[in-house]
Amino acid sequence: MSVYFYGCISLDGYLADKNHQLKWLDETGTVEETGYDDFYSRMDIIIMGRKTFDFIAGIKNFESFYETTDNYVMTHRNDLNAETFTPVSGDITEFIKEISEDKNVWIVGGNTLLAPLLDDDLMDTLIIQIAPVLLGDGIPLFTQQEITKRFTLKETKQYGQFAELVLDRM
Amino acid sequence: MSVYFYGCISLDGYLADKNHQLKWLDETGTVEETGYDDFYSRMDIIIMGRKTFDFIAGIKNFESFYETTDNYVMTHRNDLNAETFTPVSGDITEFIKEISEDKNVWIVGGNTLLAPLLDDDLMDTLIIQIAPVLLGDGIPLFTQQEITKRFTLKETKQYGQFAELVLDRM
Repeated sequence: MSVYFYGCISLDGYLADKNHQLKWLDETGTVEETGYDDFYSRMDIIIMGRKTFDFIAGIKNFESFYETTDNYVMTHRNDLNAETFTPVSGDITEFIKEISEDKNVWIVGGNTLLAPLLDDDLMDTLIIQIAPVLLGDGIPLFTQQEITKRFTLKETKQYGQFAELVLDRM
Repeated sequence: MSVYFYGCISLDGYLADKNHQLKWLDETGTVEETGYDDFYSRMDIIIMGRKTFDFIAGIKNFESFYETTDNYVMTHRNDLNAETFTPVSGDITEFIKEISEDKNVWIVGGNTLLAPLLDDDLMDTLIIQIAPVLLGDGIPLFTQQEITKRFTLKETKQYGQFAELVLDRM
């Protein structure tokens, strides 16, 4: 099993503004060609937190964007109202450890899932797009414990106004 | 006048660990070729905070690294003990505004200088090397006010294990 993070942050490291909004990101402009389609096609399972799901669920036809993966939402409630998303309660690290070895898992967001997975050294690859925007405050991507963790920088790319870093666990 | 930041941060946005140490950075490995020599040769003036100066002053022959620039340290004390560094007390933004138009200024660090300059829209170019290391806590580069500020991503480069982003003010 390989566990991936793939997502965008501001230059000062925020996933979203304080109100979990992405207006600043929409205004950075879209990019015709990114590595997203290739990345998504390699994933078997996606896991997101409840806040990420609630955000995505507000987008029209959101289920059609996640048709080829098994989709899970870490939540204590069963009210997803989405046929292709399964609620999972409990601990993300325990859930991850039960997934079979041949699967690729995308941790869609946010820091409440990423932090415990980093703390338990369960993140294999980070693919991070950095937008050329400073927010000054917001929801930070990295909230893991204070322990030095090294990755290997595999690739640095540029897609329009976004710099993408691909990092593998050492 | 053009005002530059040039410096390295961890993947989670820290200039140094909580104790202002850079051990994690030394261990990331040196890079034979970077854009540093070219960058430094274009600078006329460098300005640093007192903590940055005290760190640099612990390096043997540190004055020889800053021979072609006029060097200033923002500090309320006059005890620099360095012939080629001039102490400046007072406000960084007022000091910057007095510099003549044809000069290139490098803000060496840290966030106590960068934050007020970002808040006053006085930073022209950010050249940031991102090391593939998570610290979990430390001295953050960006501590400016919560206002969305956009830059233009001019270039994305890779030097060894460091990803470099070059961003100009919009």
